[in-house]
Amino acid sequence: MYRYPPAVERAIESLTKLPGIGPRTAERMIFFLLKAPKGEIRTLAQAIGDLADKVVPCVTCGNLSAEKRCPICSSPRRDESVICVVGEPNDIVAIEKTSEYQGLYHVLSGTLSPLEGVGPDDLRITELLHRVKAGKVKEVILATNPNSEGEATALYLDQQLKPLGVRVTRIARGIPVGSSLEHVDEVTLAKALEGRREI
Amino acid sequence: MYRYPPAVERAIESLTKLPGIGPRTAERMIFFLLKAPKGEIRTLAQAIGDLADKVVPCVTCGNLSAEKRCPICSSPRRDESVICVVGEPNDIVAIEKTSEYQGLYHVLSGTLSPLEGVGPDDLRITELLHRVKAGKVKEVILATNPNSEGEATALYLDQQLKPLGVRVTRIARGIPVGSSLEHVDEVTLAKALEGRREI
Repeated sequence: MYRYPPAVERAIESLTKLPGIGPRTAERMIFFLLKAPKGEIRTLAQAIGDLADKVVPCVTCGNLSAEKRCPICSSPRRDESVICVVGEPNDIVAIEKTSEYQGLYHVLSGTLSPLEGVGPDDLRITELLHRVKAGKVKEVILATNPNSEGEATALYLDQQLKPLGVRVTRIARGIPVGSSLEHVDEVTLAKALEGRREI
Repeated sequence: MYRYPPAVERAIESLTKLPGIGPRTAERMIFFLLKAPKGEIRTLAQAIGDLADKVVPCVTCGNLSAEKRCPICSSPRRDESVICVVGEPNDIVAIEKTSEYQGLYHVLSGTLSPLEGVGPDDLRITELLHRVKAGKVKEVILATNPNSEGEATALYLDQQLKPLGVRVTRIARGIPVGSSLEHVDEVTLAKALEGRREI
């Protein structure tokens, strides 16, 4: 059967390994590239290759970093007494956008998921416990996602952290700002009532 | 504001230039890659880079090719008296899958589209007329897409080709095999009636 030239077939095969990219999408991307200036193709190839060579996990918190330690862990202006635990590095970007948080982070690199075979040893939990045991930390904020896996992970971490004598908190679950009561599911509404505070 | 490491930002920027890839999708692809073995990242980077260096348009028909002439134009078994005109190289792959066609191809690299500023000079029309004028061609099959732009392109080509004394045909528009009358739009049904043949 007639096929594309080998280079195109290899590009389709490589691209379809990415999440959400089927053969059709890969083809569309490749045809787009083949019509683009060669420099643009090489820039994309270089940018992807650099992910292998120029991005490392921060030795302290596991965040994506260009250096051994990420800019947040290296900053003298961050509060070393608080660690915010998140699932993935993009959660850090989301929290940093608020400009509300001045402490450090810890990236778990996933969440507990028995169905997908992700257990405590697959996450960066030992590293977190080591950081807390080192002594400077007073509070650990659990900011895993508010879904069943994120909640289970938070519960597990709470059990591991409490015995170390540190304050363990969980981010508030409630009604998103700008939303309305009638459009919020009942579990969220229940959490919002449970988490009510004096005004 | 806190950002990802420069290499990640560059990869997001490059990927979002591709069609259908927004910043979120690009992020998801990059996080997936950052968790994959480094060899896999490099394979993808190499595969994309090779598109710039190892794929050229066939000098005769404009199909994607690894050599100067594509395997179809170089094959001694193809019928040189028929040229099938298509919009893009993936149309060739679709037609070759039928195993019904033994002639040659000609890729226009687009279709006429006044709205997008694509005129006759932007397509490989002069090259097609040259091939027909060379004398061996007896029939030109117009296999542009059966939408308004493809029909306009076919009409234009018909006007250009007829004076050269060559037979010009258009692929049949009708009801797709396996479909049913009630689910087909009226324009297609009208074309199916118009294109009826003795059984």
